[in-house]
Amino acid sequence: MYRQRAGAAAKGRVQGCGCLMSSTVLLLLAYLAYLALGTGVFWTLEGRAAQDSSHSFQRDKWALLENFTCLDRPALDSLIRDIIHAYKNGASLLSNTTSMGRWEFVGSFFFSVSTITTIGYGNLSPNTMAARLFCIFFALVGIPLNLVVLNRLGHLMQQGVDHCASRLGVTWQDPGKAQWLAGSGALLSGLLLFLLLPPLLFSHMEGWSYMEGFYFSFITLSTVGFGDYVIGMNPSQRYPLWYKNMVSLWILFGMAWQALIIKLILSQLEMPGRVCSCYRHSSEED
Amino acid sequence: MYRQRAGAAAKGRVQGCGCLMSSTVLLLLAYLAYLALGTGVFWTLEGRAAQDSSHSFQRDKWALLENFTCLDRPALDSLIRDIIHAYKNGASLLSNTTSMGRWEFVGSFFFSVSTITTIGYGNLSPNTMAARLFCIFFALVGIPLNLVVLNRLGHLMQQGVDHCASRLGVTWQDPGKAQWLAGSGALLSGLLLFLLLPPLLFSHMEGWSYMEGFYFSFITLSTVGFGDYVIGMNPSQRYPLWYKNMVSLWILFGMAWQALIIKLILSQLEMPGRVCSCYRHSSEED
Ligand SMILES: [K+]
Ligand SMILES: [K+]
Repeated sequence: MYRQRAGAAAKGRVQGCGCLMSSTVLLLLAYLAYLALGTGVFWTLEGRAAQDSSHSFQRDKWALLENFTCLDRPALDSLIRDIIHAYKNGASLLSNTTSMGRWEFVGSFFFSVSTITTIGYGNLSPNTMAARLFCIFFALVGIPLNLVVLNRLGHLMQQGVDHCASRLGVTWQDPGKAQWLAGSGALLSGLLLFLLLPPLLFSHMEGWSYMEGFYFSFITLSTVGFGDYVIGMNPSQRYPLWYKNMVSLWILFGMAWQALIIKLILSQLEMPGRVCSCYRHSSEED
Repeated sequence: MYRQRAGAAAKGRVQGCGCLMSSTVLLLLAYLAYLALGTGVFWTLEGRAAQDSSHSFQRDKWALLENFTCLDRPALDSLIRDIIHAYKNGASLLSNTTSMGRWEFVGSFFFSVSTITTIGYGNLSPNTMAARLFCIFFALVGIPLNLVVLNRLGHLMQQGVDHCASRLGVTWQDPGKAQWLAGSGALLSGLLLFLLLPPLLFSHMEGWSYMEGFYFSFITLSTVGFGDYVIGMNPSQRYPLWYKNMVSLWILFGMAWQALIIKLILSQLEMPGRVCSCYRHSSEED
């Protein structure tokens, strides 16, 4: 009896293993196809624009050489190399930079936030080996700590939604409809509060267009953080203190909200099976 | 009886809510203290170095103005602004750039990978509105898809470790010790394979020091991705195809491994309580 059960279990394990392998291969193929799609679209959309921009820059470079006869080509190339090196090292190149772009209090704080949230804009990055080593240790503890905080905030948000749903359910005598309404209300208000309204503030404070602010908001909250747009870096603007605090709170709560949304999409993408039993479990508990 | 139970449950809920609130406040205070620590250390370590670098750049700028008498200060400032703008837009400034820094096949592929893994180096970033909009949709599906793939790879790794542990356990007649040994063996071999050996390859291929390669490896696998170091960007190097494929595989498996490690640290950081019951559940299942 025991041997029979053990044999069946072993057979099930082997079958499960084979199924797991073939579904993993399918998953990896889908992943590669998705990457190929992205590669093709970005190549098409950006390739020509980049070529145009490069051409126009080369034209400007030649125009400059004509205007400034004292600069020859190698001198200009070496100047460009120096400037890019200094720019990457965060040196304040122009006479006026904001405190966000320097290793002062605000810049260091923003760098710490961008490290442990794994956004990593890279508008500032450590140059000394000591700071790099510390950065590694700081991230090693800070990233899990940040995840704990985000989970807690997400849990509180979830509790708030559940509380609303149960109160609506008592009023309407229809818990299912109340749950659905509270959920979609939370989704929509989060969308409004974290993605659709902040670009208005950013476009006012940073001089970006609404779409640029929206792109910045999404790239920040998804923790991709390319660093092509970073708040507080426009030297011709004065940033009040409440703005910086507001942005920090927005990052924190927005990331918690976005983590909830990504969890939702994830549970849709994962096929039901042995691998994702932990997901079903945790969603059943909630 | 029912009312009594409901009352007790409500009281428990209120107490649990109060406990949750105070522990959340404590957690947020710890979070702020940790950020303050990082701010202070980075400010101290980088502030002086940045000041030195800025001074030396300003000195160079003045020296340049002396050498090239045709350039006046405003002309140089506007030139610097143009160069930084073009650099941020990914235009090939210098005569020789690698394909990784351009919107061609390799660059677009690497950009797609860096987007859905949320590394976001930012050595390339989309400049046209169409590409930015597509980037948002691409990330919205791609990030969860990437998480699914990482979870699957992590699960396979875990299975491999469990398999080793059970075989060792049968041989030694001591399952506890075998489990512990297999676990620490997996941790150490992952450390070697994903963090300690790759810098050797990077220092050979990119001309970085070992420490720079290690810093790059950590910043990449933790998905922070400052973009101060990016592979394949040295124009004086020729990169073979196997190197780029190897790096892609390293990112994929390394991130899966690092996600396992961060999960481990997370389960140590989370205090046992109601909030983290889902964690305990999923770890009990594994
Ligand atoms: K990132
Ligand atoms: K980044």
